[in-house]
Amino acid sequence: MKKIGVALLGLGVVGGGTYQILTDNHQNIKKNQGLDIEVLHIIEKNTQRCQQMGVDMSIVSTDIDKVANDDRVHVVAEFFGGIEPAKSYLIKCLLNGKSVVTSNKELISKHWPELESAAKKGKAGVYFEASSVGGVPIIRTLTESLQGDNILSIKGIVNGTTNYILSKMDGENQDYATALKKAQELGYAESDPTADVEGFDSTYKLSILSTLAFRTKVPIDIIYREGISKVNKIDMDYGKAFGYTLKLLAIAKKVDGKIEARVHPTFIPSEHPMATVKGSFNAVMINGDSVGEVMLYGRGAGALPTGSAIVSDIVFAAKKTKHQYSSFKNSNDVSLKNFSKDFKAGYYMRMTIIDIPGALASVAKVFAKNHVSVKTMQQLSGATEDRVNAIFILHKTKESNIIKARVGLKQLECVAGIEAIIRVEE
Amino acid sequence: MKKIGVALLGLGVVGGGTYQILTDNHQNIKKNQGLDIEVLHIIEKNTQRCQQMGVDMSIVSTDIDKVANDDRVHVVAEFFGGIEPAKSYLIKCLLNGKSVVTSNKELISKHWPELESAAKKGKAGVYFEASSVGGVPIIRTLTESLQGDNILSIKGIVNGTTNYILSKMDGENQDYATALKKAQELGYAESDPTADVEGFDSTYKLSILSTLAFRTKVPIDIIYREGISKVNKIDMDYGKAFGYTLKLLAIAKKVDGKIEARVHPTFIPSEHPMATVKGSFNAVMINGDSVGEVMLYGRGAGALPTGSAIVSDIVFAAKKTKHQYSSFKNSNDVSLKNFSKDFKAGYYMRMTIIDIPGALASVAKVFAKNHVSVKTMQQLSGATEDRVNAIFILHKTKESNIIKARVGLKQLECVAGIEAIIRVEE
Repeated sequence: MKKIGVALLGLGVVGGGTYQILTDNHQNIKKNQGLDIEVLHIIEKNTQRCQQMGVDMSIVSTDIDKVANDDRVHVVAEFFGGIEPAKSYLIKCLLNGKSVVTSNKELISKHWPELESAAKKGKAGVYFEASSVGGVPIIRTLTESLQGDNILSIKGIVNGTTNYILSKMDGENQDYATALKKAQELGYAESDPTADVEGFDSTYKLSILSTLAFRTKVPIDIIYREGISKVNKIDMDYGKAFGYTLKLLAIAKKVDGKIEARVHPTFIPSEHPMATVKGSFNAVMINGDSVGEVMLYGRGAGALPTGSAIVSDIVFAAKKTKHQYSSFKNSNDVSLKNFSKDFKAGYYMRMTIIDIPGALASVAKVFAKNHVSVKTMQQLSGATEDRVNAIFILHKTKESNIIKARVGLKQLECVAGIEAIIRVEE
Repeated sequence: MKKIGVALLGLGVVGGGTYQILTDNHQNIKKNQGLDIEVLHIIEKNTQRCQQMGVDMSIVSTDIDKVANDDRVHVVAEFFGGIEPAKSYLIKCLLNGKSVVTSNKELISKHWPELESAAKKGKAGVYFEASSVGGVPIIRTLTESLQGDNILSIKGIVNGTTNYILSKMDGENQDYATALKKAQELGYAESDPTADVEGFDSTYKLSILSTLAFRTKVPIDIIYREGISKVNKIDMDYGKAFGYTLKLLAIAKKVDGKIEARVHPTFIPSEHPMATVKGSFNAVMINGDSVGEVMLYGRGAGALPTGSAIVSDIVFAAKKTKHQYSSFKNSNDVSLKNFSKDFKAGYYMRMTIIDIPGALASVAKVFAKNHVSVKTMQQLSGATEDRVNAIFILHKTKESNIIKARVGLKQLECVAGIEAIIRVEE
């Protein structure tokens, strides 16, 4: 029986979940995987938490050198989050030949190249299934399946907090502030919700997934980002009437050899499989040139779902006789010519029009001038008698055309305001 | 660069798709996977098909010994379908140290133990991602992810033909015969559709998936099987009114340490993610004790989706320095004490009641006597004035109770007929 020594850096939510799975399922993993996994070290300041979890306190310390210098340790699982000290600690362990497993999406999206470089030197591996969409095996699908496919696109609901908020706004008629408050009460959202609601968390995950899918480093700073904090419930309702459901989507596509990557509120057809992904669930749809559309769905966060992915990576790493490294130039120093500055989407636009003769003709003229074609238009009663709410569903066009059209529209006397522009993916 | 010699046994739909992917994506696989994959042999009688596919005819033959005795061949991919000659050919190749990749679900569900035994002798591997749900990486998810989870259940729409037919009946108001005919015209159903519509194909796949999930051989003959040929559109419509959608589900669960496995038409809540799986798409939901619910969705059949899984397995097998074998007793000679004879489900029951005083009370009495509890009941106008259609939605109970209740109900004077019993999974 192969003995595998493990160190856990941090015993918070996911660290605790991992410890629990390794303890509860120890015999099963032994029997099914032929691995006798033992937790040899826990690096955690909060000794009370360790006691609550029933940990043997003699393995708890705050000294990373105990881990890095222990020859019995094969795999180090990190749960600190953030960049430091996680990065220095992991590099130290990698250089000493210990494989690293992490759920730290910020670290992987920003510093995978450095970690991989240390891993190569130490002949160790870096595994991060848990960093993207919790227990859902999306990383393994990209690395161990679809090897013969050219990936054309990835679209995902990769953040449970925002999906919970949007589901509440959609299903229970709550406005953004109420839904956010509810999410905070339930522990789905942090007291400072910025990382989730402004889309940062989604860009980390999209960076990781699109890098693996397109085998080109996609740094977070080339990803267009727009969160959900400015979403109005009224647009979700109007969209619904046109057959759309609003989701915060992370999208990466390869178009004409260039990669586009973006995170923003997106209308998708209500009968699309991703439209039915509710609450804190996540889903990622991959489109490959051979396999077509494949979607993976499940819990993107939580102690046990994320812990499940960590344990899977520990087993996966422990069984490797030789670790694999990326077959592309894995560096944050990328050429911008690999990436699109512009992209194409459908658009939903809501504006307030002053009801004067020829108003609609003027609007239509600005659209036409900027190569924007109207698919559907609907006028709804507005705030006052002389104003109407006009909803335009626009055919697929370049984002740059929409930006130009918006400038033109704002100059029109009959346009009192453009209240919402939401991208549409069919 | 590692050179990998491949032999294709058969160049039909999936064999052709595989050949196409290996040809079109040859350079990409070389670059991304570090493998130079060359097709060295094609075993195919239909030389015309080979010519149409643009194959170098010097590699086409009908002689398996050419494959088995060629030291340059590392992986043999089989597309014959059925048991023989596939089984003998593959065993011959395995004994000679060639790994085997196959989409042959009947062969794997019936003869995996013999194939694995030959593989062990030849130090080769048997890979069958393509045998279940085409390009969807469900096998890899069970073997390379979720290693720390105890799988509690698997539920899946694993047959595209029947899902296409049920979707047509549901969405386009067609009866079973019309929908089947349409499926046959489009090539989704065979001229003899028995294997699909009577659920045999689904039992093969469920046998494979549940064997991997529960690490116990689940032979096809212990799987309860009921197809869709007796499904009435009227029950789909009535079910819809109660919030249910009808699917042919393959279900395997571990309950009180015993495995239950069954394939039958099933009502699921219309808001369940699997209810939105339309047309020829497939989906499988796995429930693990740590990960919770994970669903995989995609195309379960077709030249390129299934070819994608075959190519993935070829790459996966080619990269293995040592093949893994099942960690459980892999034998068709199983102890029946591992399997439940009975199972629990919710039920939908439609019967014709003769409208005499006390009729409903008599029916209710039979249910109560057999531990069947009514959740909802609705009476609808029947064929004649003195007869009503009664729909009962029954709480979760043992199948054996329902069978006994049905016997009791049939003996009642007021029950003219029991037209439909459909299981409900929440």
